Amino acid sequence: MSRLLQDVVGELSKLPGVGRRTALRLAIHILRMEPESVHDMTRSIDRFRNGIRYCSQCNNLSDEEICPICADRERDHTTICVVEQVADVLSIENTRQYRGLYHVLGGVISPMQGIAPSDLKIDLLCERVARGGVQEVIIAISTSVEGETTLFYLMNRLRQFPGLRITSIARGIGFGDELEYVDELTITHALRNRREIE
Amino acid sequence: MSRLLQDVVGELSKLPGVGRRTALRLAIHILRMEPESVHDMTRSIDRFRNGIRYCSQCNNLSDEEICPICADRERDHTTICVVEQVADVLSIENTRQYRGLYHVLGGVISPMQGIAPSDLKIDLLCERVARGGVQEVIIAISTSVEGETTLFYLMNRLRQFPGLRITSIARGIGFGDELEYVDELTITHALRNRREIE
Repeated sequence: MSRLLQDVVGELSKLPGVGRRTALRLAIHILRMEPESVHDMTRSIDRFRNGIRYCSQCNNLSDEEICPICADRERDHTTICVVEQVADVLSIENTRQYRGLYHVLGGVISPMQGIAPSDLKIDLLCERVARGGVQEVIIAISTSVEGETTLFYLMNRLRQFPGLRITSIARGIGFGDELEYVDELTITHALRNRREIE
Repeated sequence: MSRLLQDVVGELSKLPGVGRRTALRLAIHILRMEPESVHDMTRSIDRFRNGIRYCSQCNNLSDEEICPICADRERDHTTICVVEQVADVLSIENTRQYRGLYHVLGGVISPMQGIAPSDLKIDLLCERVARGGVQEVIIAISTSVEGETTLFYLMNRLRQFPGLRITSIARGIGFGDELEYVDELTITHALRNRREIE
């Protein structure tokens, strides 16, 4: 087997969800791409890895000291939505419905995985709120045991700020979900939080 | 959204089977890798794309003019196994049972996709056989309509060489396949080519 092919298959196999077979398929595809297109791709990967940083305010990925969302004066700086990870910011941004700021925790508290509150950007969040101007913190983290633990911990930390509104995104049946396949806890929440039909 | 992240997600999305969501997951993973590891990967991709060539004898991927298999004097140079693509060579090599040479056609004849015999390395195969020393050509191409057309065309071309043994890999039920789910054509072949139990 060609050394160059062997190397590229070995390197691509290190990516998550890419086995040797997929790596080989990717390599064959790369072979059919223009060399310049391939170089555009590899250059963007290197630039991303070397150039990316974390926003010093919200911990989201950023090209600068402050990310474009935190730097945007048009956005609502009185509201902060707390999420676990960078991908969550993108999911919410894709709805184009939220105009406030974010705060990326970088995970959830998990004694099993050795993730303590100090490993997350919780102090940074409290500092932001302490600087004033924040009226509401929306907590949008997952409903796992770890997520609930994190929610509880966050509530305790944020309660020190009088007048701060602390909310959680609504739990319920997703659009398109069939009730038959939805778990009991979600149905319980959805029933408890039922609303008048307007 | 960060420009660098946007770029890398856009570039990775060009790969087959990689949507924006997977590209984002890959980007987040790349972020957790050491910068040197990332650079090792991108360098191997560029080197592969720019350095790889096709063996002038068998059309397999190669780092040199002649691939390691064709250059190996320990292998059986009297037998050539004809396959569609590079990945097929690797599948057969992984069995460690075949010691002959290969010939990579680069596809199968497909009027629908506009692939004519002249687009495949069939002339190159005939030249190899014409140079002498080849005793057997094993045809190991898929059993699709295109594959059968290609097989028929190859048979016609190879019949010009007197004394050349032309064979096809056996068709039958794969190990672990359940008869219930095997298609009728395969079962027909498997029944027709039944063997005495030794």
